[in-house]
Amino acid sequence: MIYTAVGIGIAGGVIALLFAAGRARWILKQKTENPELERISGYVRSGAMTFLEKEYKALAPFVIVVAAFLYIGNDGHLRLQALSFLIGAVASALAGFFGMRIATQSNSRTTHAALSGMDPALKVAFSGGAVMGMSVVGLVLAGISIVLLIAVRRIGQDATSMVRYVLPVMSGFSLGASSIALFARLGGGIFTKAADVGADLVGKVEAGIPEDDARNPAAIADNVGDNVGDVAGMGADLFESFVGSLVGAMILAFSVEGSFEIKVRLMIYPIVLGVIGMLASIVGIGLVKTGGRRSPQQALNLGSFGAAILASIGAIPALLLLFRGHPMPEGITLWGIYWPVLFGLAAGIGIGMFTELFTGTGRKPVRSIVRACMTGPATTIITGMGVGMLSALFPVVLIAMTIFAGHAFAGLYGVAVAAVGMLVTLGVQLSVDAYGPIADNAGGLAVMCDFPAEVRDITDELDSVGNTTAAVGKGFAIGSAALTAIILLSSFRESAGVAVIDLADTNVLIGVLLGAVIPYLFSALAMNAIGTAAFEMIEEVRRQFKESPGILKGTQVPDYDRCIAISTASALEQMRLPGFIAVGAPVLVGFMGGIEMLVGLLVGVTASGVVLAIFMANSGGAWDNAKKMIETGEGGGRGSDAHKASIVGDTVGDPFKDTAGPAINILIKLMSVVALVIAPILQARGG
Amino acid sequence: MIYTAVGIGIAGGVIALLFAAGRARWILKQKTENPELERISGYVRSGAMTFLEKEYKALAPFVIVVAAFLYIGNDGHLRLQALSFLIGAVASALAGFFGMRIATQSNSRTTHAALSGMDPALKVAFSGGAVMGMSVVGLVLAGISIVLLIAVRRIGQDATSMVRYVLPVMSGFSLGASSIALFARLGGGIFTKAADVGADLVGKVEAGIPEDDARNPAAIADNVGDNVGDVAGMGADLFESFVGSLVGAMILAFSVEGSFEIKVRLMIYPIVLGVIGMLASIVGIGLVKTGGRRSPQQALNLGSFGAAILASIGAIPALLLLFRGHPMPEGITLWGIYWPVLFGLAAGIGIGMFTELFTGTGRKPVRSIVRACMTGPATTIITGMGVGMLSALFPVVLIAMTIFAGHAFAGLYGVAVAAVGMLVTLGVQLSVDAYGPIADNAGGLAVMCDFPAEVRDITDELDSVGNTTAAVGKGFAIGSAALTAIILLSSFRESAGVAVIDLADTNVLIGVLLGAVIPYLFSALAMNAIGTAAFEMIEEVRRQFKESPGILKGTQVPDYDRCIAISTASALEQMRLPGFIAVGAPVLVGFMGGIEMLVGLLVGVTASGVVLAIFMANSGGAWDNAKKMIETGEGGGRGSDAHKASIVGDTVGDPFKDTAGPAINILIKLMSVVALVIAPILQARGG
Repeated sequence: MIYTAVGIGIAGGVIALLFAAGRARWILKQKTENPELERISGYVRSGAMTFLEKEYKALAPFVIVVAAFLYIGNDGHLRLQALSFLIGAVASALAGFFGMRIATQSNSRTTHAALSGMDPALKVAFSGGAVMGMSVVGLVLAGISIVLLIAVRRIGQDATSMVRYVLPVMSGFSLGASSIALFARLGGGIFTKAADVGADLVGKVEAGIPEDDARNPAAIADNVGDNVGDVAGMGADLFESFVGSLVGAMILAFSVEGSFEIKVRLMIYPIVLGVIGMLASIVGIGLVKTGGRRSPQQALNLGSFGAAILASIGAIPALLLLFRGHPMPEGITLWGIYWPVLFGLAAGIGIGMFTELFTGTGRKPVRSIVRACMTGPATTIITGMGVGMLSALFPVVLIAMTIFAGHAFAGLYGVAVAAVGMLVTLGVQLSVDAYGPIADNAGGLAVMCDFPAEVRDITDELDSVGNTTAAVGKGFAIGSAALTAIILLSSFRESAGVAVIDLADTNVLIGVLLGAVIPYLFSALAMNAIGTAAFEMIEEVRRQFKESPGILKGTQVPDYDRCIAISTASALEQMRLPGFIAVGAPVLVGFMGGIEMLVGLLVGVTASGVVLAIFMANSGGAWDNAKKMIETGEGGGRGSDAHKASIVGDTVGDPFKDTAGPAINILIKLMSVVALVIAPILQARGG
Repeated sequence: MIYTAVGIGIAGGVIALLFAAGRARWILKQKTENPELERISGYVRSGAMTFLEKEYKALAPFVIVVAAFLYIGNDGHLRLQALSFLIGAVASALAGFFGMRIATQSNSRTTHAALSGMDPALKVAFSGGAVMGMSVVGLVLAGISIVLLIAVRRIGQDATSMVRYVLPVMSGFSLGASSIALFARLGGGIFTKAADVGADLVGKVEAGIPEDDARNPAAIADNVGDNVGDVAGMGADLFESFVGSLVGAMILAFSVEGSFEIKVRLMIYPIVLGVIGMLASIVGIGLVKTGGRRSPQQALNLGSFGAAILASIGAIPALLLLFRGHPMPEGITLWGIYWPVLFGLAAGIGIGMFTELFTGTGRKPVRSIVRACMTGPATTIITGMGVGMLSALFPVVLIAMTIFAGHAFAGLYGVAVAAVGMLVTLGVQLSVDAYGPIADNAGGLAVMCDFPAEVRDITDELDSVGNTTAAVGKGFAIGSAALTAIILLSSFRESAGVAVIDLADTNVLIGVLLGAVIPYLFSALAMNAIGTAAFEMIEEVRRQFKESPGILKGTQVPDYDRCIAISTASALEQMRLPGFIAVGAPVLVGFMGGIEMLVGLLVGVTASGVVLAIFMANSGGAWDNAKKMIETGEGGGRGSDAHKASIVGDTVGDPFKDTAGPAINILIKLMSVVALVIAPILQARGG
């Protein structure tokens, strides 16, 4: 039974990777036929790959130390955790590498394709995104199946082996993915904001040259930042969520009351769902074309919703094949593990819609910020923060409803299925997410290489479509982070073997309090990191303008590499402390305060983190779009006082929405996974 | 035994009130001998009292409805909750009334006394604060003792009566105090910020007249706001904390394992501690004079720390009298209920010191904001938010340590004793808190009435001393709110009769998630309320300047009353929705989701609220002081770009630190108290 499932998982992973490879080959076959475009996009490409290379090199010692710790800290079968951790880390890193490599090849080709019209440009940009999306899905499915195969072959597949060894080994895979994700998000987030602020503040404000001007030494770093932050960072984030929800569901499958056989079937079900969703995503990706009749927005919607509907339908035969005729566990019906898939999907879409409602251009909340911009920067900030804080209510209520409904149908396992359901069409979702920055970059290249205005119009439209769908994508990222964190911490309780965690225990309360403060500490460190990194970038850009006056006249090529090197060095330097806290806090609290305090910590960090992350992401998004509305003529238009106030809002919002907010999503998952991995050690100490 | 305690409590309350009355009489005997000062301070006085009157009138229907609900919803002895609720509400309102009445009499007398020097001015201002401080302490002690007396006489003092009826009736008193506190803080906070923003934006920025200029129609409203926000609001806040910690400790006294007699003694102990602290506070207040040798700061420190030391020593004989020779409960030693008093006091001081470290003028974090101001408003905001977020770590760790230590010595009861210990010298603490706005107002009056510069120098020094000690006071407010909320929610669990609240129960997790979002919702509503109220104020001030050109020339008296009326009306209107949410959320969740979800909600709201409140308060404080540093010449001084950026920071910080932040302190306590009050009803339904 398990081997069949492993086979399906590996086959699914290979199919996804082959599809990604096919799309990648097709992209690389496209021509750009423009030496200037080649030159500039070459800078972006090599900058991005250099960053990734340095990042991975910087992470290698960390990965080795953690693997060594897992090997030494455990004994017997559990030592396999070290291996599964390594596989998880490498798979996540590989997904980032593939995705970025192709994304940085797709941007210039999108610019070139836009010369022939909207449809070819959409096809190239979206294909670039699809490589990222399907690489992630493929590596998750193949990776998790291979680790399961290794664990089962080395340990055994009887009941005791599964619960005591195989599942803890699986959590090692999740830890590997989470670790890379945290650093990718943080490092990428710091890189991109440092470059962005540096480019804007000196280039736009001081020197008065437009955005994306090739004379700006930080312009390339800025474009590199979009790729490392939005493509690789987002990919790693959702890689982690997907792995976390799968591993959590597998662990919780063994917590139900039922026969061993049904538990194994329940464990396999999420993997099968993932494969079905992957196939549905391939169909969905194929549907994304305008065909001359649809707008790009409609094409993307068709792909996303088409895949979701297909996956919902496709799950039914899988469900029947796996479970019909087998006695279900107590209190769970056959269909009781189907509906949560739909709840998860619906909640993801719902959160996305609320996100759009609060941050979308022309919506009431953003209009209120535009009005506030007219009275000055202070009211702009207060109003934007109010919008973000208010907006947190609705996603949290939706997440709570999903937990409630999932639990009502199939207990904690039902909640886990809902989390998997939310990510089941990750392939197409992530393609849409990654497509946005590619289109954005293509536009930037069009400006830097003086392409005709029509090209910029097409890339602008593609980019703006990307913004709306990105809101929905963010909904999935936030919702899945919350659900994944909750099922991981429930899994931890299972793994640590504690029957009851009493909230009246003061140690639990202390844990909750300490947990609640960690996302704030983490955000503070991330925002300070951006400040430090941006400061160095500002100094460098000023120095280049001063020492090489030819740059501004266009007679001298700026030293792009130095700016990239500065952003890279700062990002890698500054991500250490927050990263260390994320990994270290659960270990410290677990060993010093005990399992009860650790569960409290995880609950506190999840509840506080989810709300803080939504608040930061949505405030940032709303400020961004308020600025865009003013730039299109509202409230006085470009250059007005309102516009200046809106720039202040946008600048405050940038680290909110692109660094601290998304990094908290990973923080809450990572801390639960760390707890999960050390659970056997804690249990051994406690028992 | 109980009657003796009631006697001590009532006697203590009467002593405190007599002391307050004596100080009040002395203040009223002081002369001002300046008709202009009389006229202007008369406006402030009548504006403040009008606001208070209208506020209480607006709250009367709410109080009556809740009392009716408590009467109808309960039956038998529990109907007394309605009466104790009314007594709590009236006592809290009376404390606010006394405090404000004398504070608004003290400000002009302080201005006048400053003509004779520092010492007389300090004496008047501090006496004004002491009236507030001792009124609060007296009304708490007398009120709680009277309610206990009534309950015991009507119900009985056997074990069953105490646990099932008397203690729930006590929680009604706490609810009364909390309800008034929430509206006082919210209403006062909205009033003061609307007036402040209106006065600054039109007066200072548009018309270019200085702060506290009598030509500004909103200037009086601004001064009224200081009194209703900082004097009455702060008083109600700490009234509530003190009541909550006492009632929580009384309930938790009955949760220990021991004889009935020892439980009664444990229940009485907090009241006796309160009386000892009150006496120590009277001595401390007497110590506050410079005597020509000490600076005002040293005088205030002498009073505060003197009272704390005296109370610590005075608690020892009380402890021995109450407990020596009586068998202590299992696992608790005699001294085990003494040390937590000191932990509480130490934690309060520690939190205050960290607050000062992060928000004090000249400290590193504030210096970093000053540097950020030089690069513009956006970095000012980001840096200030980073400072506030980072600062939350230390108070939370101190609170966690206090809970841990209190629990280690005497279980949950030990935590409750720590909470009482933190507030034991409330009399002198609150005197220091209330003294600040009086000194500030005195300075404002000196400017408006053209007093010589020396007078302003003296009031400025008194005011700046007040700022530093206010930071310590804030520490006590935040720390006691957190501890009180935690013991109240523990008390709720006791009262609701649930043995275990399992964190793995998804209903509990849902409660925690929903709880975590409430402080954000509440803050968003409070900040939006300020925006709305300030907007009306801006319009009104503009209208007056336009329609009566004589105002700016000084030939026409502005219509101060209209501005006060606008602030009053908006504040009362806008406080409704957030107030309703605070009271309604626990009722709704309790009846729809059950006791487990309600406990989760309380834990979530407390953990998330404590952190958010500290972050907001400290960001606001740091921005404020960064602006002050720049105004004294740092970073370019007044009128520089850095100064403008610092004003943006300060304006954003105002609603943070004066409205949303402090209101969250009350929110977390109020929600726990609401739960506590409905506990018997919920238990009856559940059982």
